[in-house]
Amino acid sequence: MKFNVFTQMEYVVWAPGTLILSIHALRTPNQTVISEEFSIEPYIKFEELQSAEGENRLIRFEVQEQCTVKVTYNALVDNCVELTNYEHQEITLVSQLPVSVLPYLNPSRYCQSDKLSSHAHNMFGHITNPFEQVVALTNWIHYNVQYLSGFSNAETSAFNTFEERAGVCRDFAHLGIALCRGLTIPARYFTGYAYQLNPPDFHACFEAYIGGKWILFDATRLVPLNGLIKIATGRDAADNAIANIFGNINFTTMQVSCELAENSIEPIYYNEGEHSGLSYL
Amino acid sequence: MKFNVFTQMEYVVWAPGTLILSIHALRTPNQTVISEEFSIEPYIKFEELQSAEGENRLIRFEVQEQCTVKVTYNALVDNCVELTNYEHQEITLVSQLPVSVLPYLNPSRYCQSDKLSSHAHNMFGHITNPFEQVVALTNWIHYNVQYLSGFSNAETSAFNTFEERAGVCRDFAHLGIALCRGLTIPARYFTGYAYQLNPPDFHACFEAYIGGKWILFDATRLVPLNGLIKIATGRDAADNAIANIFGNINFTTMQVSCELAENSIEPIYYNEGEHSGLSYL
Amino acid sequence: MKFNVFTQMEYVVWAPGTLILSIHALRTPNQTVISEEFSIEPYIKFEELQSAEGENRLIRFEVQEQCTVKVTYNALVDNCVELTNYEHQEITLVSQLPVSVLPYLNPSRYCQSDKLSSHAHNMFGHITNPFEQVVALTNWIHYNVQYLSGFSNAETSAFNTFEERAGVCRDFAHLGIALCRGLTIPARYFTGYAYQLNPPDFHACFEAYIGGKWILFDATRLVPLNGLIKIATGRDAADNAIANIFGNINFTTMQVSCELAENSIEPIYYNEGEHSGLSYL
Amino acid sequence: MKFNVFTQMEYVVWAPGTLILSIHALRTPNQTVISEEFSIEPYIKFEELQSAEGENRLIRFEVQEQCTVKVTYNALVDNCVELTNYEHQEITLVSQLPVSVLPYLNPSRYCQSDKLSSHAHNMFGHITNPFEQVVALTNWIHYNVQYLSGFSNAETSAFNTFEERAGVCRDFAHLGIALCRGLTIPARYFTGYAYQLNPPDFHACFEAYIGGKWILFDATRLVPLNGLIKIATGRDAADNAIANIFGNINFTTMQVSCELAENSIEPIYYNEGEHSGLSYL
Repeated sequence: MKFNVFTQMEYVVWAPGTLILSIHALRTPNQTVISEEFSIEPYIKFEELQSAEGENRLIRFEVQEQCTVKVTYNALVDNCVELTNYEHQEITLVSQLPVSVLPYLNPSRYCQSDKLSSHAHNMFGHITNPFEQVVALTNWIHYNVQYLSGFSNAETSAFNTFEERAGVCRDFAHLGIALCRGLTIPARYFTGYAYQLNPPDFHACFEAYIGGKWILFDATRLVPLNGLIKIATGRDAADNAIANIFGNINFTTMQVSCELAENSIEPIYYNEGEHSGLSYL
Repeated sequence: MKFNVFTQMEYVVWAPGTLILSIHALRTPNQTVISEEFSIEPYIKFEELQSAEGENRLIRFEVQEQCTVKVTYNALVDNCVELTNYEHQEITLVSQLPVSVLPYLNPSRYCQSDKLSSHAHNMFGHITNPFEQVVALTNWIHYNVQYLSGFSNAETSAFNTFEERAGVCRDFAHLGIALCRGLTIPARYFTGYAYQLNPPDFHACFEAYIGGKWILFDATRLVPLNGLIKIATGRDAADNAIANIFGNINFTTMQVSCELAENSIEPIYYNEGEHSGLSYL
Repeated sequence: MKFNVFTQMEYVVWAPGTLILSIHALRTPNQTVISEEFSIEPYIKFEELQSAEGENRLIRFEVQEQCTVKVTYNALVDNCVELTNYEHQEITLVSQLPVSVLPYLNPSRYCQSDKLSSHAHNMFGHITNPFEQVVALTNWIHYNVQYLSGFSNAETSAFNTFEERAGVCRDFAHLGIALCRGLTIPARYFTGYAYQLNPPDFHACFEAYIGGKWILFDATRLVPLNGLIKIATGRDAADNAIANIFGNINFTTMQVSCELAENSIEPIYYNEGEHSGLSYL
Repeated sequence: MKFNVFTQMEYVVWAPGTLILSIHALRTPNQTVISEEFSIEPYIKFEELQSAEGENRLIRFEVQEQCTVKVTYNALVDNCVELTNYEHQEITLVSQLPVSVLPYLNPSRYCQSDKLSSHAHNMFGHITNPFEQVVALTNWIHYNVQYLSGFSNAETSAFNTFEERAGVCRDFAHLGIALCRGLTIPARYFTGYAYQLNPPDFHACFEAYIGGKWILFDATRLVPLNGLIKIATGRDAADNAIANIFGNINFTTMQVSCELAENSIEPIYYNEGEHSGLSYL
């Protein structure tokens, strides 16, 4: 599926400082960036950074004088997803997990899986198929947590959301991750551009490691699972901020869009009783 | 400096499960493992894992039947430390940090730097030399947090310790890390064997990234800074547990020791007014 | 310095096969790809690969039916170079080299440094400054090897060129690398787009590791040292082919260009008696 | 299978220099180093290095004065091998190979696969199963190249061995690798301790990448395939020297041994018509 993704953001820079943006489409075996353009007005030389494990593309630049900075990114991206049947999936023993996956079992800033582990076991511990476990916990979040803008903030964690039962996509994702890790299922945060997200914005959901693959889950059900363009994955929102600002710099406005660059898309959602897990490689 | 380090731990295994231990001395340019022996009784084949960034050596094994497991590790390690003068150290701009260092600016499970950043700035923001900042916050912790066994637990975070003013080495380290990150100084958790620690145990302290090096700080002042054998570094205790247990397995007893294998050691502590930072490479 | 780089290549595909191209501008701390576009006609989904050490960007795609394939790449790239004075440079001991640099001391397919080591020592072993050694050997190649198209072929190695004294940029680079390695100076192959190269083509030269940096050398003197856009580095042409073809696929035509996207450039060459080494980071 | 491996080597150091040794048993998911000891007499602090891809463990140390140096290594290693049936194995398309495997298709110093590709295709191109291809070429080497000590030297390459039809284990391995790569089968050099090798020495053979695994082949047939302890893998002997010497240092004597530390071993060789490939992970 080809998508045109676009974002434009403005910052007022009051004093010299550094911006690190995570808005570029990731390059993966299945996600091809056909063309892309990134500009900063006024022109500033920027640097593209990549973590050792290759799960993000960071753009870093230093603004050395007081000004207003406008960044624009647009890209044409061809993405394909893979469906795997998990009807008879057994749990993967920790002794079989690759070393690169182990950190995604640990609690993190916004996903205190240690504090939610008993809850996770009480609610979903009886299910033996790990795919069904994650589907069940995703459904539970969907039906028990209210999608509510402005309720949560940058300090809100999965534990808060579990108690307060309201939040936005980021909070839904954090809670899903924390419950997975509490069940000893590795899980990580996913940010991306999302087709048909309304109002348009960046989106967050999560991936769980099942049967050797990172499978996508989204407790918000706001967009088709195959309508995403991956930007980055990480432990939680602490690793995956769209923008990290260092210095006296204020964010002012943002536009985001994600348009289909083909005739049509067959939207995929997980349905009751089905066992097809979708993965972005 | 050569040290003999030793640990022995026993576990009662009630049902099949997996253990991941982080007790091996790290191999680094400056820390040489001359000889080492690791045994599991009864014998079980184990696997040594290493993270991509090489900041730990994990031992993983699966116990497949009910039993009592005893693990023993001993090693002869030659370590040397480096002293650097930071009297005229300027802050390193975020735009100059290596990409591998950036995650250590993010808040983590036990180091909610986002929640402690204002406090950090109010208390230490007026200091311009980053080495002096970290010395000052380490001293502040030393004089304001009581070293008290049994007060904190596995869920205790830097934010809790900041409010409750008591804890053990792990809590001292977490608070030091959170305050550093709040000041935009990268910081990470450090576990090791410690010479003259009383009672003998594993030790935790932290490293701050200053002037291109990871410098060691220890708010507990329980051991000389050059009396440590590094086991691992990571974001916080969530990444650096001595043992991660998966399954119905109980820890029963543990012994730890760290003996000097040379005639004498000139102990190093940071003194008032000095600017020598010590690093383990 | 901003440059517009461009290439277009055509292949006739007689039977299904795979192409791996190395034509994308590398993204490095100092080389920023501002915008780029890569297309394959007819459209085929491609994959971007990157080696663990990040020294290239490979484009891989499979052609599944008989056809003619046209690939086009263009990019706007902002590059800056660094000049370092090596007047008092001492040799770097092998015991101080980073582990990632060590393989560039080994002989490789086209750079049999083992066979040229005595020659290298006889000719340049008396020089004690390693920068001056590499300048001297580069000059020696420039004055003793004739630049001659069609003389060498894909099997020609540094040893052949040393004996036959003629070749193209690739052969000049291989000989430079082999002589460096023979003197225990790590050296690697460099491919790029080159400003003012006549006739326009991809260019090859080499980097030597001196004083902790990879310094650029070009025995052909065909282009200014600061007029290059780096595509890749590697052990020799075996690692850095512009195109690796697997299957019954024939290369037919190619166009390459590299235009200045600024008003002017101050060309840099190494001059007699100067000690400024230029590096692309 | 548990083995005790041992080596002792002496060097006369005429002037300060550096030694890099590759004699430590590799730590892999299937090869566990239970205990090990490495000593240098007189004592010199050494450094353990590991390549990014983790395919070796290098010991590096600097000798700063004229002396005789004796190094001793002994280890207890538990190794297990995996057998896979390749009866119906299809060729892996280059478009499906992991990026870390691609360099093992390139020609290297001692394995000029480009010069042997036509021969490889003429002799083995008609075989469609890649496992059978490598078995066939290994057999061909076994029956057509004479195992002869002292015939080849440090400059001898696969191309020389193909023409001259004599050599030692290193030459057999190089020729096997070059023929594999000529057939577009990734192949790499393997060094190890070998059980029942007579006279005792380090051994070299090779691995070919078939069906997603690195499978072991040994054209010398001198030792059982499951009697090896892996030290390192690499492109060829240029990457995998037992010792790399920098400076005026002479090797004098060496002892090597590899003893079974269990009651018995069921030796594995590839037999006519069987399709079980053995891999060390």
